[in-house]
Amino acid sequence: MRKSASIRCAAFAAASIDGRIAQSSTSGTDWTSAEDWRFFQTSLKEMDAVIAGRSTYEVAKDKLSKRNTIVLTSKVRDIRISGSVVFINPKSYDLKKFLQSKKYKKVGIVGGAKVYDYCLRRKLMDELFLTIEPYVFTKGVPLFAGSEFKKYNFKLLSVKKLNKQGTILLQYKNAD
Amino acid sequence: MRKSASIRCAAFAAASIDGRIAQSSTSGTDWTSAEDWRFFQTSLKEMDAVIAGRSTYEVAKDKLSKRNTIVLTSKVRDIRISGSVVFINPKSYDLKKFLQSKKYKKVGIVGGAKVYDYCLRRKLMDELFLTIEPYVFTKGVPLFAGSEFKKYNFKLLSVKKLNKQGTILLQYKNAD
Repeated sequence: MRKSASIRCAAFAAASIDGRIAQSSTSGTDWTSAEDWRFFQTSLKEMDAVIAGRSTYEVAKDKLSKRNTIVLTSKVRDIRISGSVVFINPKSYDLKKFLQSKKYKKVGIVGGAKVYDYCLRRKLMDELFLTIEPYVFTKGVPLFAGSEFKKYNFKLLSVKKLNKQGTILLQYKNAD
Repeated sequence: MRKSASIRCAAFAAASIDGRIAQSSTSGTDWTSAEDWRFFQTSLKEMDAVIAGRSTYEVAKDKLSKRNTIVLTSKVRDIRISGSVVFINPKSYDLKKFLQSKKYKKVGIVGGAKVYDYCLRRKLMDELFLTIEPYVFTKGVPLFAGSEFKKYNFKLLSVKKLNKQGTILLQYKNAD
């Protein structure tokens, strides 16, 4: 049973063939295709709010500061509001209750690896849109930064080829 | 230019959505689908030889010891032959020359992570068949165990859905 039935949280990620989302936590995503970028931006427009980690927020500040953005960070005590951006420490402030209090219907999870992992563990990931760009990096930040191995079940809903090089977009729903 | 023009090396791997191939280097692949297993076994039959790492060989000894198997290992000085199984230390023995001397046409690379990385770096990976099972593991052995971040280019040749849960098989060719 999904616990976030009233809110639908969808994660958006772009990875290499070998599941890397970036070279390091402070590097951008300039290696992703224009087709993925368009899909990502169009999808975000449909979201009532976006959840991002602090590093991801810093990298994409220009865009995210204009939206309802929830930044997960250990740098605030519990919650700090700055315009449309809310900084939350998920260890001391209940993220799920915050989302419910705001009556958000659709929330986008935009990473990074720790945030994807946190949302999955806390049953806040109903869907996963994964773009696979046709590269192998062999090293870098993995899609999920988990502290323990666990088998989470998903179901593939669709596969879409986005361009000639073979960027593909996989849509999964959480099946746990 | 691919340097292994006369030999065609194809890597076969099964990974989770987040690019993990196993819980640890000594764990098996009992979590992969029957459909992937069938594809893998059928493909291996077409190969003249198989390259595996020592841990992968230990896990799949029953099957691999009957084939022409090249085990990459640091535990031998240069080369040790045992029936159809050849143990090679790639630091002191030239793997590419060995493959050429045997006149192999098709070689399968079956992992694990260090072997995939070694073959890619040494231009011994012309194709990559990646099965993505519909799970997220959040931790575990990554598909490629690289020592440095590098962008290797691939081109997607085909996508095939293998079952109802949404196991997919991606076929890439090396585009560097």
